[in-house]
Amino acid sequence: MGDSTSSVPPLLDLTIDNITPNAIKINSQSNNARSTYLMHRLVTHLHDFARETRLSTHEWMSAIQFLTQCGQISTNVRQEFILLSDVLGLSLLIDAINHPKPASSTEGSVLGPFHTHDAPTLPSGSSMTSDPDGEPLLVLCSVCDTHGNPIPDVKVDIWETDSTGHYDVQRSGRSRPTERCVMKSDTNGEFWFKAIKPVSYPIPNDGPVGKLLGALNRHCWRPAHLHFMLEKGGWDHLITALYVRGDPYETSDAVFGVKKSLIVDIEKVGKDTAAQYGVEEGTSLLKHDFVLVSKQETEELRDRNATEALEKLGLRMKLVDHLPVPDLD
Amino acid sequence: MGDSTSSVPPLLDLTIDNITPNAIKINSQSNNARSTYLMHRLVTHLHDFARETRLSTHEWMSAIQFLTQCGQISTNVRQEFILLSDVLGLSLLIDAINHPKPASSTEGSVLGPFHTHDAPTLPSGSSMTSDPDGEPLLVLCSVCDTHGNPIPDVKVDIWETDSTGHYDVQRSGRSRPTERCVMKSDTNGEFWFKAIKPVSYPIPNDGPVGKLLGALNRHCWRPAHLHFMLEKGGWDHLITALYVRGDPYETSDAVFGVKKSLIVDIEKVGKDTAAQYGVEEGTSLLKHDFVLVSKQETEELRDRNATEALEKLGLRMKLVDHLPVPDLD
Repeated sequence: MGDSTSSVPPLLDLTIDNITPNAIKINSQSNNARSTYLMHRLVTHLHDFARETRLSTHEWMSAIQFLTQCGQISTNVRQEFILLSDVLGLSLLIDAINHPKPASSTEGSVLGPFHTHDAPTLPSGSSMTSDPDGEPLLVLCSVCDTHGNPIPDVKVDIWETDSTGHYDVQRSGRSRPTERCVMKSDTNGEFWFKAIKPVSYPIPNDGPVGKLLGALNRHCWRPAHLHFMLEKGGWDHLITALYVRGDPYETSDAVFGVKKSLIVDIEKVGKDTAAQYGVEEGTSLLKHDFVLVSKQETEELRDRNATEALEKLGLRMKLVDHLPVPDLD
Repeated sequence: MGDSTSSVPPLLDLTIDNITPNAIKINSQSNNARSTYLMHRLVTHLHDFARETRLSTHEWMSAIQFLTQCGQISTNVRQEFILLSDVLGLSLLIDAINHPKPASSTEGSVLGPFHTHDAPTLPSGSSMTSDPDGEPLLVLCSVCDTHGNPIPDVKVDIWETDSTGHYDVQRSGRSRPTERCVMKSDTNGEFWFKAIKPVSYPIPNDGPVGKLLGALNRHCWRPAHLHFMLEKGGWDHLITALYVRGDPYETSDAVFGVKKSLIVDIEKVGKDTAAQYGVEEGTSLLKHDFVLVSKQETEELRDRNATEALEKLGLRMKLVDHLPVPDLD
């Protein structure tokens, strides 16, 4: 394992067998133990991949071109590398590592490439859709802690596709955000809004990631869902989604996001609820109670999980700022 | 190991521990054993990297942004992902895997991101530089096989920087290629040209890769060299470079390209040579004899190396079209 005091070896006559330790050494000259460790593992895995596959020059060049295309198709409202991370299962893994959930709390799901930062802030009770063709959906939610106490003033980001299965950012000439909003939970920890019943949709398949899925004979569909991001100081940032039960892609989500606890039933609004929320009786209804975990509890759980997992891997590590670095002492 | 006949498991409730086998399974639905194997190893290494480092959401997002910037700064004459591959030692490794060299043949070196396809074809004896500030260099070369027989009609791509250490493509408003050419070896396997004495230069440090080197406390210099690419049907494509002996970066090349056998001495042109080639006596002189290996010999050596290396790694593989896939029989 490299460390910042090691001298750099003469880099000459590098071969299949000695390139890796030498590249690791030369990447170990900063005083940042974390970046030294990240580069150590990155170079090791990258080189091992090439050695195990005997990667051909042609395949290498195809990968270079693929990555270049991912970068070039990305814009401030399209992120092909996040999509790539999603379809490779990396995004799910990163979420699971960073946001471990104690039993009884709401599980996380993938952020996806379609969250934006320009959603309008709307008062609870607003409609967050402008699509007249969608099936109206009343959404009644609450936020509480793991003891059932309501949490007020939680900032909630909500986004979904229109009834054709497209996010606003996928439309050319998008002039303003639609089918997305930010609201706050009230003093009872509640918030509610009018939306449309989510539909299943294909992830963007006009770019390099879509072509990759095609080449792998994978479908590119996601089951119908509504995205939620819940944020409040002192609480672990929750990125999640609610999935409509019975979707044909419920168990084959292209981005691995579905969890049983996040699959919800769509009910019908009864007479009293219709009157209370000003919607027609029989309107589709989604009710969900989100359970947040405190930042401290999450950090402790994450540190404990990390320590246990690294021990199981046989790695001698210590946590610095909650992130593992080699324990050289 | 996935295979194309395996049914896809229900993808639900994926965790840190089960995401990898499930992602591998879903990537194993094509009938292409090679792409199934490549994806198997890619997903395994990518996920192992995240698990070993407990990669934070912030680090993941930094990587997404870094890759996006690499794509977006790339153009048809700038390739930041090749540069990234170069500084990570991957390019050297890919060359070594794909172009093994028997003793007595010319070793390969990294292609680098500055080769273009628009270099003018010049007759042997031409000047390939238009830089009046460079130190004139007469370059006399030959190409032969491993038995010393000359190889005529070899297409030779040659490129170098100008005297300020910049390739033509790094100049804004480049209207035509300079400091690069393509020529052919004559019936004696010889070719010669007028160039300038190469200088050491920094790889482009205005992009994400340059910033990465800075963060790692690595310098971004390459020792002075002249690039050569030799190509002829039946012979293994040789991508190499000649390095000027005594360069301050001789043993710390930022892209790991230097090999002892490729370090050359710069001599001075004597009276007879000056008269023969029409240059002034005392001009700097670089003489080099390139030795090509037949395509067949290279393929056999590559297959043998691959088989031995994979056995050493304990992998049960077979070669299909010279590329390893799992041997499931």
